[in-house]
Amino acid sequence: MTCIRQDGKFSLGEHTLSVPMELYKLNQERLCKRLQELVVDNAYVLLQGGSNTSHYCTDVDYVFRQESYFHWTFGVSEPDCYGLIHVSSGKAHLFFPRIDEAHFVWLGKPLSLNEYKCLYKVENTSYTDMLGEILDSLKPSLLLTLHGKNTDSERMCKEAHFPGIDRFTLDNTILHKIIADCRVIKTDYEKEVMRYATKVSCNAHKSVMTKCKPGMYEYQCEANFLHYAYYVGGCRHVGYNNICCSGMKGAVLHYGHATEPNSKKILDGDMCLFDMGATYSGYTADVTVSFPANGKFTKDQRAIYNAVLAASHAVMNAIKPGVSWVDMHVLANKVVLKKLCEINLLLGDVNEMYEAGLAAVFQPHGLGHLLGIDVHDVGGYLEGFPDRPQKPGVKALRTARNLEVGMALTIEPGCYFIEPVLKQALNDPKLSIFINEEVLNRFWNFGGVRIEDNIFVTENGIENYTPVPRTVEEIEEWMSKKNTVA
Amino acid sequence: MTCIRQDGKFSLGEHTLSVPMELYKLNQERLCKRLQELVVDNAYVLLQGGSNTSHYCTDVDYVFRQESYFHWTFGVSEPDCYGLIHVSSGKAHLFFPRIDEAHFVWLGKPLSLNEYKCLYKVENTSYTDMLGEILDSLKPSLLLTLHGKNTDSERMCKEAHFPGIDRFTLDNTILHKIIADCRVIKTDYEKEVMRYATKVSCNAHKSVMTKCKPGMYEYQCEANFLHYAYYVGGCRHVGYNNICCSGMKGAVLHYGHATEPNSKKILDGDMCLFDMGATYSGYTADVTVSFPANGKFTKDQRAIYNAVLAASHAVMNAIKPGVSWVDMHVLANKVVLKKLCEINLLLGDVNEMYEAGLAAVFQPHGLGHLLGIDVHDVGGYLEGFPDRPQKPGVKALRTARNLEVGMALTIEPGCYFIEPVLKQALNDPKLSIFINEEVLNRFWNFGGVRIEDNIFVTENGIENYTPVPRTVEEIEEWMSKKNTVA
Repeated sequence: MTCIRQDGKFSLGEHTLSVPMELYKLNQERLCKRLQELVVDNAYVLLQGGSNTSHYCTDVDYVFRQESYFHWTFGVSEPDCYGLIHVSSGKAHLFFPRIDEAHFVWLGKPLSLNEYKCLYKVENTSYTDMLGEILDSLKPSLLLTLHGKNTDSERMCKEAHFPGIDRFTLDNTILHKIIADCRVIKTDYEKEVMRYATKVSCNAHKSVMTKCKPGMYEYQCEANFLHYAYYVGGCRHVGYNNICCSGMKGAVLHYGHATEPNSKKILDGDMCLFDMGATYSGYTADVTVSFPANGKFTKDQRAIYNAVLAASHAVMNAIKPGVSWVDMHVLANKVVLKKLCEINLLLGDVNEMYEAGLAAVFQPHGLGHLLGIDVHDVGGYLEGFPDRPQKPGVKALRTARNLEVGMALTIEPGCYFIEPVLKQALNDPKLSIFINEEVLNRFWNFGGVRIEDNIFVTENGIENYTPVPRTVEEIEEWMSKKNTVA
Repeated sequence: MTCIRQDGKFSLGEHTLSVPMELYKLNQERLCKRLQELVVDNAYVLLQGGSNTSHYCTDVDYVFRQESYFHWTFGVSEPDCYGLIHVSSGKAHLFFPRIDEAHFVWLGKPLSLNEYKCLYKVENTSYTDMLGEILDSLKPSLLLTLHGKNTDSERMCKEAHFPGIDRFTLDNTILHKIIADCRVIKTDYEKEVMRYATKVSCNAHKSVMTKCKPGMYEYQCEANFLHYAYYVGGCRHVGYNNICCSGMKGAVLHYGHATEPNSKKILDGDMCLFDMGATYSGYTADVTVSFPANGKFTKDQRAIYNAVLAASHAVMNAIKPGVSWVDMHVLANKVVLKKLCEINLLLGDVNEMYEAGLAAVFQPHGLGHLLGIDVHDVGGYLEGFPDRPQKPGVKALRTARNLEVGMALTIEPGCYFIEPVLKQALNDPKLSIFINEEVLNRFWNFGGVRIEDNIFVTENGIENYTPVPRTVEEIEEWMSKKNTVA
């Protein structure tokens, strides 16, 4: 049989990773273990999966993406499902929409309930129209539903609902913070998927680099990335809008949106800053490479690149369990400032310029963020963990937690020359005193550099699972393979 | 300057089509001309553009797509805009969100109001927060807003709203049917964009065909299509979910969705049925090719393919202004039935089997649909035009209109072997009497064939603007170029 949706596995063919459903079973177990301390007997978790989203009033949908909490818990690919877990036993019950026979013509014959049970390795499967009735028979002491705010978007997450749910005893105060905290620590199963998504992304970036040349449009590099990720890696989705900027556009941090759709022509002498990450089996990579479009760094490009790389190395050497993420951000900032002093772009004492707020001029974004199913993964600010810092420079950080074994994070220091920000700084005597305008004048058209790796926190430090050329020498050597690799 | 968003043009580089904003100016004029007969002096049309859509509660958005009516009227790429047209003078006024300086770091410096005015060739531009105030000063006698149902999705379209709109005299009964009817007839400007989107799609299909071979996964063909469309054609979007089926999956009409994500391995002997269309500057193509994965038709594949091709040719020869689309559907159906008789799969009189309902067994979908900004373009069922037919077989048609010069349509007859549908037919004596089971038994694993062209209705007939290999001989010859073309 050539069908690749085999029982208990997710795979997109033998050249891709086979993901066992034990990944989700273990997530369910971890969640139940935490909940068992908090709830009475015969409590259930009820989660509602995602639905299709149409283009406005048309009958065309976006390619379906599963809701993240639901994916983390069940690994289900289908829209319009519910999932129930008995907290004390850990037994899982999935509910699938009943598809009437008239729709088989359009959608194909769906799996039977028994086939779904095998595919997703759960104890029970039913149709969603039976959910109320089945819950009646289970007599839950408590139904735990998901209610909480995503601290990156400020949006509320999707809380399970079905007609008649109000006849049960509901609690939506417990689940969110527990499940979000569970998601912060990655299991070995999850790590394997994330390593795969990042490896595919890195190979895609490497392919993009060797094919990149001045005269191409940025979106053609985006197209090359997407093609490699999907064709070779089986990654239908990416984790976020592709940021493919070149030259001055490197100073637009979220470039690639509708108004700036990666549509500039890449010029000889431009730095490219490509931030793209492929998603496999629901987990995403988030990788940025910065390189000269023509394959050879100029002296100034090398200086800025090495400043950022030094910040990255400093952070990677310093990370270990217990370390504060805020401290890592400050460390990266100070290394960049120090390196900018070495090329006389900045003048003075690094600590003084840091205190004055100069770091945020050159890197207005945080050092990185939790990574997982969401590119800005959940759990950054939870009850019982450090609150968002209020100080300028660090208040944009997506978490202020101390690092723990099993966390997945991006480390992405950067250095940008953003005209309005620099002009503001030059007009602010507290900041301008440190800036050597004569040197700065060489950089107005520079754009920016960002170096972004994906790491796990380990017992002794980190595992950096981002295999791309990183030093100036590695990049120049790789770029010299232009046209000789596929 | 390397920026490719030039004044009054949309283009993604010199290798892509340059679309003049006169396209939208002419649409505005056409709309106003129709409205002038219906409304009093100093009436205005108010449309609200689309907004970003996030992945659930996360801070990641889908790549932005403009709302279709707004795109048709103004051609604006940005989210969160409004557009106002003075009906009697035709003067247009666009409103853009005010982006505060703190966001320049993330989004780049937006265009000034004056630059937007040049880019979109409108008489006035303002920020959206000025909309109420500016309307107060304009003292509209009537604000026409969009209110109506999409007859393919049954969803209501997006009606303009802003806080305080109720202080104006509103009318939402006039605009929808007029603008939808305007969208049905394509101007020369629109035709040029549609020809480009379809040409890119056809070249992408041709590239996919030469690279396709047994052993690949369907989604790898999808990846090749997407790459060609974006890299070569500048098409960031496609008009609908890509349908890439092979073998038996060819009988799943809307294959490619989350449960069947183009993930089957393509086998030697499979027919491929690939239905994909790229979108450029908001207008979409919708092209299906059917071909043997290994490049050579078997006798049975040739017979079914030629049955469908004969239906396509019959329709294309019959279409001219005034002809009923329903009649064209019936014509295609009968040609396919006749051809199935010629290979002894069906036995008896074609008209009798048609009346018994046999055509819908082999082609459960309509002959085609209006095409434009939406793949199932609007205007299929409007007040004053024929209602949806009630008879089985034709009630699924997306329009029952008589054809007019300037309409854009797909012609997409098909022939499918859908197990549950065929089994139902064999159990129905009214249908089974016509079916030769001995011959049918060769086709249970066949899947299906669909041939889909994009055409304009002209004074004398049609313009078919779908340049792909279509005859068995053309396809076999093109497929023999395997690995010799890029």
